Amino acid sequence: MFESAEIGHAIDKETYEAAVVALREALLEAQLELKQQARFPVLLLINGIEGAGKGETVKLLNEWLDPRLVQVESFLLPTDEELARPPQWRYWRKLPPKGRIGILFGNWYSQMLLGRVNGQLKDSELEQVIEESVRTERMFSDEGALILKFWFHLSKKQLKKRQKELEDDPRHKWQVSVLDWKQAKVYDKIVDAAELILRRTNRDFAPWYVIEGVDAYYRSLSVGRILLESLQAALKSKRAREPSPHAAPLVSSLDNRGLLDSLDLSLSLSKDDYQRQLASEQARLAKLIADKRFRRHALVAVFEGNDAAGKGGAIRRVTGALDPRQYHIVPIAAPTEEERAQPYLWRFWRHVPGKRQFTIFDRSWYGRVLVERVEGFCSEADWLRAYGEINDFEEQLRDYGVVVVKFWLSIDQETQMARFSEREQIAFKRYKITEEDWRNREKWDQYVDAVGDMVDRTSTAIAPWTLVEANDKRYARVKVLRTINDALEAAFERG
Amino acid sequence: MFESAEIGHAIDKETYEAAVVALREALLEAQLELKQQARFPVLLLINGIEGAGKGETVKLLNEWLDPRLVQVESFLLPTDEELARPPQWRYWRKLPPKGRIGILFGNWYSQMLLGRVNGQLKDSELEQVIEESVRTERMFSDEGALILKFWFHLSKKQLKKRQKELEDDPRHKWQVSVLDWKQAKVYDKIVDAAELILRRTNRDFAPWYVIEGVDAYYRSLSVGRILLESLQAALKSKRAREPSPHAAPLVSSLDNRGLLDSLDLSLSLSKDDYQRQLASEQARLAKLIADKRFRRHALVAVFEGNDAAGKGGAIRRVTGALDPRQYHIVPIAAPTEEERAQPYLWRFWRHVPGKRQFTIFDRSWYGRVLVERVEGFCSEADWLRAYGEINDFEEQLRDYGVVVVKFWLSIDQETQMARFSEREQIAFKRYKITEEDWRNREKWDQYVDAVGDMVDRTSTAIAPWTLVEANDKRYARVKVLRTINDALEAAFERG
Repeated sequence: MFESAEIGHAIDKETYEAAVVALREALLEAQLELKQQARFPVLLLINGIEGAGKGETVKLLNEWLDPRLVQVESFLLPTDEELARPPQWRYWRKLPPKGRIGILFGNWYSQMLLGRVNGQLKDSELEQVIEESVRTERMFSDEGALILKFWFHLSKKQLKKRQKELEDDPRHKWQVSVLDWKQAKVYDKIVDAAELILRRTNRDFAPWYVIEGVDAYYRSLSVGRILLESLQAALKSKRAREPSPHAAPLVSSLDNRGLLDSLDLSLSLSKDDYQRQLASEQARLAKLIADKRFRRHALVAVFEGNDAAGKGGAIRRVTGALDPRQYHIVPIAAPTEEERAQPYLWRFWRHVPGKRQFTIFDRSWYGRVLVERVEGFCSEADWLRAYGEINDFEEQLRDYGVVVVKFWLSIDQETQMARFSEREQIAFKRYKITEEDWRNREKWDQYVDAVGDMVDRTSTAIAPWTLVEANDKRYARVKVLRTINDALEAAFERG
Repeated sequence: MFESAEIGHAIDKETYEAAVVALREALLEAQLELKQQARFPVLLLINGIEGAGKGETVKLLNEWLDPRLVQVESFLLPTDEELARPPQWRYWRKLPPKGRIGILFGNWYSQMLLGRVNGQLKDSELEQVIEESVRTERMFSDEGALILKFWFHLSKKQLKKRQKELEDDPRHKWQVSVLDWKQAKVYDKIVDAAELILRRTNRDFAPWYVIEGVDAYYRSLSVGRILLESLQAALKSKRAREPSPHAAPLVSSLDNRGLLDSLDLSLSLSKDDYQRQLASEQARLAKLIADKRFRRHALVAVFEGNDAAGKGGAIRRVTGALDPRQYHIVPIAAPTEEERAQPYLWRFWRHVPGKRQFTIFDRSWYGRVLVERVEGFCSEADWLRAYGEINDFEEQLRDYGVVVVKFWLSIDQETQMARFSEREQIAFKRYKITEEDWRNREKWDQYVDAVGDMVDRTSTAIAPWTLVEANDKRYARVKVLRTINDALEAAFERG
């Protein structure tokens, strides 16, 4: 894989300088077009051998491009806010918005290589993180991102020579590398791991470009041209990349109807039973959140359900157990301008709780396969691929110790009608009824289908759905609290 | 000040319960109106004696209100990202947007009290932080915020009794207080300091309410009613608060014209001198940024100037000295939706660099007194008060060790015209010329006035303006670099 990047590619100064004038002009034009279209971001991942010109090339790109529209991010040591969250969080928070170019040093591939060199990442774990990276990059690509991955290469002999030069150059002193490249074995380990990683993660939607690093003219011109050509192609095509046809069509929805129909909506609790059980479950929750073992976890509770199914009331009974400093509620409405400039899941990643924290999502990322599907706010391809992306997202949360609990509060149409009417009459509940609620009601059957598909495709061992029989509010509230408590206890027992 | 909060106010259960029904309903109505108007945020600051019911009251408010529109923030130990920035940063990042209620525990007053109890805050320093808080709150108020400050009080005797009860209550174990209230002296020190702080910071635009904490019914109803009445009044008035008439009118602008006229725009550098001096200043900057002493500082460079004055080119010469991982460029355009929902300075605070970081603002917070003033994008009262707010902001940066360097790149009308024409002809510079540039040109005189006033009012010892003679790009670029270097060196020498 690296052979052709060790043969001593070089370009003479004159050829280089002649080419650069046109290249710069074209890059600036493309960058302006990128900004004006504001349809997709560009992600450049920068990896490679020490001294192969990573930093120099990025510096040069920043000179050629309008640096005000380029965002260079390096990920060295994580901050404590980053350490308290799943490892992907730090990348999500630094993603460039649509219309911008983000250059990421020290990205997820650096983490993999580091893990291999220090022996922390076993073969099977490496396969797993590779697989996860491919899925993440495919998602970014499906969301429109243009992804280019560069590996700056040097042969072992070239590296030795370069290190000698760098030693004498004071300008390089400040650069911190987490790897000790002077150790002879490091090079071999890196190249071994890189060989596998590049092979596995070289996809049409996120290709690797191996750049020989010895000659500055050659490497600069190569990177500049790759960027320019990819950018021009993406700007011309209707989408940055054509969406991959990987979303399997859904089967007939006859079974879905069965799923919600199978709920026994007559389940209920007497007032006495309710008050006793509610108090008991609330005390249990307070205790679990205060438990020392919660320090290694975080809690995410997702509330979805029919309009007027009692989400707000159920949430109040959960928070009623806790001090307001112990939780955050994130109500999900239409995305803001900054959120629309990012991949779909970005607006949820930004609210992912740190360790010991509890976040309640009042509606959630499932909007994609519910309201957005039913109302046609996104394309069919978008919501079809969302199932897999959501499963990946929740797996990333869970892998870090975040307990994910998801509720669908289910009522029947008669109960909904009764509650709508009741709400319109009681003044201080009036604020909850909108015309949209009435419109949604007309799409009841479509929502039934959407909920069925959602549960079929995203109720996983990692983050199962809990369908809550909510015709009786008391029953629903207790079931919600008990489910959260059971999930926390199970997580504590798993450790 | 606290006498009337030690006399044992109490309400009986029946009176309380009867009042609460109507109060809850009215609070929900007001909250809905707040959300729909989305004109201003509500800030509740929560302080007081341990055990006086701070947490309980906030919990209750969260039950009465729609908790999805309330954001409770507590500030215990700062994270390392917060520690790397001025102390105000952590409050700014948690401000509720317009239409929401933010409840802040452990706010700036808690910091003052803590500083007094542990003796870190001397009298004169206390006066200073008090003064700063008043100015910040006035600014929030002028931006529309409704600010209510609550002091939950107990007499010393009441506190002793309460502590006894709390000891036996396991639910209170998780609560962390940075103060050891069991020490007899703590109460006296807190009350002493609070007496002074409350007196000084009790303003019409951000009043204190002292709440006797012994009786839960009394304190809950008091807080609820104060919140309701304030909210209702603010919702009715055209603005949350009438803006204070504290902005002094500007004097005649005759002198302003003199200021820019006094620049010798014929200053220039030969190509040789330029290349030598540029290389030397760039090397100096690289060295200063790599200097160990920079770890205790951060650097902010602000670029303002006439259109086509060469801001972009000057910025490139600055960044040309550095590795792209060492700086961030923040181009300031129209605010986003999330930024518009916050006080004016919020969108700059979010980009304040941490220690050892360098942020370049390509246009800046001075837009308020330049383009927004000239184009009428904000009211006269808004830009008149901005001068003082900006000075406060920069003082807060500087107090933390952030070096603030501000450039006005000045060219004359002939030079601008020549550059506009040149740009329209050269393809790869074409992207820089817009119709807006031509329109701005027609307002040349108004900008001259605005720049003059800006420099008069915001060129401070803490963050002086540097007027850059920019008809000659070479001269301008070297002057910019040299000024940054001098400022860094001076800061290092001050330590």
